[in-house]
Amino acid sequence: MPDIVIHEVGLRDGLQIERDTVPTATKAAWARRLAESGVDMIQLGSFVHREKVPQMADTDELFAAFRDAGPRPVFTGLVLNEKGLDRGLACGVRYFCMGVSASETHSRKNTGMTTAEAQERIIGAALAARAAGAAVQVSVQSAFGCSYEGIVPESRVLDIVRRYVDAGFPIVSLADTAGHATPDQVERLFTVLQEIDPSVECACHFHDTYGLGLLNCHAALRAGVTYFEAAFAGLGGCPFTAVTGGNVCTEDLVHLLHRLGLRPDIALDPLIDVAREAGAFFKRDLPGRIYKTGAIKWATEATKAT
Amino acid sequence: MPDIVIHEVGLRDGLQIERDTVPTATKAAWARRLAESGVDMIQLGSFVHREKVPQMADTDELFAAFRDAGPRPVFTGLVLNEKGLDRGLACGVRYFCMGVSASETHSRKNTGMTTAEAQERIIGAALAARAAGAAVQVSVQSAFGCSYEGIVPESRVLDIVRRYVDAGFPIVSLADTAGHATPDQVERLFTVLQEIDPSVECACHFHDTYGLGLLNCHAALRAGVTYFEAAFAGLGGCPFTAVTGGNVCTEDLVHLLHRLGLRPDIALDPLIDVAREAGAFFKRDLPGRIYKTGAIKWATEATKAT
Repeated sequence: MPDIVIHEVGLRDGLQIERDTVPTATKAAWARRLAESGVDMIQLGSFVHREKVPQMADTDELFAAFRDAGPRPVFTGLVLNEKGLDRGLACGVRYFCMGVSASETHSRKNTGMTTAEAQERIIGAALAARAAGAAVQVSVQSAFGCSYEGIVPESRVLDIVRRYVDAGFPIVSLADTAGHATPDQVERLFTVLQEIDPSVECACHFHDTYGLGLLNCHAALRAGVTYFEAAFAGLGGCPFTAVTGGNVCTEDLVHLLHRLGLRPDIALDPLIDVAREAGAFFKRDLPGRIYKTGAIKWATEATKAT
Repeated sequence: MPDIVIHEVGLRDGLQIERDTVPTATKAAWARRLAESGVDMIQLGSFVHREKVPQMADTDELFAAFRDAGPRPVFTGLVLNEKGLDRGLACGVRYFCMGVSASETHSRKNTGMTTAEAQERIIGAALAARAAGAAVQVSVQSAFGCSYEGIVPESRVLDIVRRYVDAGFPIVSLADTAGHATPDQVERLFTVLQEIDPSVECACHFHDTYGLGLLNCHAALRAGVTYFEAAFAGLGGCPFTAVTGGNVCTEDLVHLLHRLGLRPDIALDPLIDVAREAGAFFKRDLPGRIYKTGAIKWATEATKAT
C-alpha cells in the first residue's frame, strides 16, 4: 500500500448536485483518464433512487463498463441502504462506502431516520456487503458541524465511531459534509479516533465551503490520517444541506502532496485534463486552482515522466 | 496591542494589477468601511511611478483624505525608493512598507538592481523614514520561491533578514509573492527568523495562487507569527511575476481566526461589504469565499453586535 491513499470521489460527490446530466460515455472517459493518474480509488457513483438523483441514474451501467478492469484503481460505490447494496453487488462492486450523519436533523432529512436507526441499518448493510466478499468504508457525515444544527458534539461523532469499531469495520471516514471543520478540531477528533482503535484506518472527507479544505487535509495529515477523499476541479456539495461548497479539489490536493514530497507517483496531468473537461462541460469557472494556473513546474519534475 | 495583527493590503496589492481604475472616492469609501471592521492597519496605496502603475496614481490624494483620521487603524504606504518616501512623508504617512526580492531575477525585473544593491538602497530609505518619525516594516519578497528562478535558497532569505536585523528594524515581513510557499517551509523559515532575533516582530504575506494561502497562514500562526497581511475578496497579484494569484483573502482569514477563537473583535460584515462592492465594481467572481457564502452563522455570534 502507498503511504497516502487518494480516493477520487468527483464522479459521485462532485456531480450529484449538478443539474446538467453528464452522459455515461463522458463519465467513463473521465474515469479512465482519472485512473491514468495513479490515484488509488475512484468512486463511480451512488446507488440511490434514480429519479431522486438523476445524475446518478447510470451508476449500474458505469460499473458494468469497468467490471473487467484490473485491480488498480479500486472502483467504489456509495450505497444508502440494502436495496442499493443489492444493485451494487449485482454489477460487481468490490468496495462500498456507507455512512450516517452525526446530525439528527441532517439524518432525518437525508434518510427519514434518526442517527441511531440509520446506523443500525447501515451496519446491517455493511455486514452483508462484507459477507458477499466486498470491502467497506463506513463514515460519519456532518462530523464537524451541521448547517441545520450548528455544532455537532464530538461525543456524538465518537459514539458512532465506537459502534462501527465494535462491529469490526477496519476503515472509518469522518466527513465534513458542509465544510465547517477547523484544523484544531480535525487534529483532535482524528487523534481520539485513533486512540479508540489504533488498527482502524482513518479516512477524511472535507468540503471547501469556507476555503479551509486543504488546511483541514493538512491538519488530518499531521494527525496521522493517510486516506483522503477529493473531487476533480473541486466540484460538488451535498444537495441535502442548507449551505454547502465543493469538495477538496483532487489535483490541488495532489499538488500540495507533491510539494510535501508525498505521492510523486500520482500524475497531475490526467487530473488536470479531467478538471478542464469538466469546466468546459459545465461552462463555468470551477473552484480548483491548479487546472487553471498549472502546477509549479520546477516542483513537479518528478511527475513529468508519467 | 491585540494578540493578532491584521494588515489589510487590498487597496494596494489587491488593486495594483487591475486594469479598471477604481475612483479615488470609491477607494476612500472602501477604506472607511474596512476601518469599521476593526482591522489594525490598512494600506492605502504605493508611491510608485504614476504612469507605470496608474491604479496607484492617487495614493498621495488618498493619504491626504485620511490625514486627520485617529490613531487606529494605522494607514500604511508602500514605497520602493527615496523618491516614494519623500512623497509619502509629504502627505503624512506614519507607517511605511519597503522590501527587496530574494530572487535576483525578480529584483532586476522589479527594480533594475541586484538584491544586494536594492537592499542597501531600501535600508537607506527605511532609516530616513525612521529619522522622520515614521514606523517601518521591511520585507523580503519572493521569500518562498520565484516564478522565474524556482527554488529560492533559504540562506539567501535569511541573509537579507540578518542585514535588516543588524540595521535595527523591529518588524520583518516574509512575502510569498508568487504563492509558492508550503506549510513546512513556512514553519521552518519563521522559526529560524525568530531564532535570529526573538525581539523582531515577524509578519507574513501569502498569495493563494495554488490554494495554499490560508494553510500557510495557519502554518505561520503555529510557528508563532501574529502579523498577517491580506486583501479583501482575495484580490491581487504582482504584475512583475510570471504566474501569480490573489492575496490571501482578508474576510476568509478573519473567519478562520474567529473559528480558532482569535480576534472576535474584528467584524466580518464591513469586510464582506467591501468584497461585494469590489466584485460588483470589477463585474466578476473574485476568489474570496465568505463574501459569497456568508460566514458560518452559529460560529460568528460574537461579532454580531459590532
